[in-house]
Amino acid sequence: MSAVENMEDNLVDVTDPSVRAQIEDFLTDYVHTIDDGRVPEWPEFFTPDGFYQITNRDNYEAGRPIGIMQCQGQGMMKDRVKAMYEANVFEPHLYCHLLGRPRLQEEAPGLYHARTNFQIIRTMQNGGQSIFATGKYIDVIALDGAAPKFKDRRVVLDSRRVDILIVYPL
Amino acid sequence: MSAVENMEDNLVDVTDPSVRAQIEDFLTDYVHTIDDGRVPEWPEFFTPDGFYQITNRDNYEAGRPIGIMQCQGQGMMKDRVKAMYEANVFEPHLYCHLLGRPRLQEEAPGLYHARTNFQIIRTMQNGGQSIFATGKYIDVIALDGAAPKFKDRRVVLDSRRVDILIVYPL
Amino acid sequence: MSAVENMEDNLVDVTDPSVRAQIEDFLTDYVHTIDDGRVPEWPEFFTPDGFYQITNRDNYEAGRPIGIMQCQGQGMMKDRVKAMYEANVFEPHLYCHLLGRPRLQEEAPGLYHARTNFQIIRTMQNGGQSIFATGKYIDVIALDGAAPKFKDRRVVLDSRRVDILIVYPL
Repeated sequence: MSAVENMEDNLVDVTDPSVRAQIEDFLTDYVHTIDDGRVPEWPEFFTPDGFYQITNRDNYEAGRPIGIMQCQGQGMMKDRVKAMYEANVFEPHLYCHLLGRPRLQEEAPGLYHARTNFQIIRTMQNGGQSIFATGKYIDVIALDGAAPKFKDRRVVLDSRRVDILIVYPL
Repeated sequence: MSAVENMEDNLVDVTDPSVRAQIEDFLTDYVHTIDDGRVPEWPEFFTPDGFYQITNRDNYEAGRPIGIMQCQGQGMMKDRVKAMYEANVFEPHLYCHLLGRPRLQEEAPGLYHARTNFQIIRTMQNGGQSIFATGKYIDVIALDGAAPKFKDRRVVLDSRRVDILIVYPL
Repeated sequence: MSAVENMEDNLVDVTDPSVRAQIEDFLTDYVHTIDDGRVPEWPEFFTPDGFYQITNRDNYEAGRPIGIMQCQGQGMMKDRVKAMYEANVFEPHLYCHLLGRPRLQEEAPGLYHARTNFQIIRTMQNGGQSIFATGKYIDVIALDGAAPKFKDRRVVLDSRRVDILIVYPL
């Protein structure tokens, strides 16, 4: 279990429908932003020092700090997006994310934990479609009056075999 | 961007939970109706002059008025359903739709815009299953006291390569 | 139509957001429990005399009492879980469930009916991923002050061709 999951014992379920609606809209906007190809907006979903990691379930459950992709802070995320547009050569493709209902818990006022199942279908330039990734998002979200932001987002993939070139954030 | 998406600047987010619940039930009933094979009920989800179009993302974003399937008004939809049962010869199959959370915005009291990701898995008579389509619904929904109805539903497919025989509405 | 579906005429739509939230959390916890491999907790989602059946759409709609897997009561479910761990030899794999919005109706105070679309993606040990099953859950749920429990859960698969070895509950 990771540090994030170990804290679950101290958490209480969220029952405030307004908090849930704000967080669900936020999680939905995130996937729409990526699915619509507006990747330069991606770092804005995080706090300035937010953490983002794509990992797999084996490494996540063993608590290994190994990520397929990892960013500490918005600056690093912006660099990554810039590099992606400047340097990467890849076949254009699209993602379609679908999310399950997030399980929401409160750590402290304005600080929430979310676990959300996801499936991503990828569509290639030639029209071919395939399951690209499934798994769960494990998030810590700050929601203190202003718009929600990720303090910590772990993308925990079910499969240990992932397309080596993860171009877009998931 | 299509006319529908260009209007988004004039829209305000829906925060009324009762409006959201009614619209989400409506969107859910629509997919259940098709997945359960009750296609003759499909035109009832639209206003009398409602517009329905299946298109792909390239054409939608370029604003091209080209549809893979297009119906203007309930009458045309009913004709289409009738033709489908009378004339089409096709291998029986089933759809299973899954929807993301809709992003909801209000254009005017009783008039809402929704954008909803979807994935459709098709099951053939022999039991084989495959990804049939992914994409987003871009909807304009009338909800004026009575049951919600689509004024405009665009099915925007991620893939430009679609099974030539779209038998059922999506 | 099965007995469960035939009763729908006597049901009224659920509009209480708190009832919906409790049931949606319950349905979400169920799939997270299986997806996370905590199968021994599975019987706890049912009432002591709860009924669980995996069937396919043809048999369900014809009202045939034939199940691919069937359990009457928590005791039988616990035996099944025990047997699964003791006896079965199978390649490790993971499920990722995604649920649609449940359509909720009330039969009597504290007794609800739910119909929920689902898709399950399976990930094998070698990382390969495929559509494992799609269909709908048809549920009768008791919610009488305490935590919700299934009185009756039918897993109605779209496909008549199912991997003969359904190891985990769905």
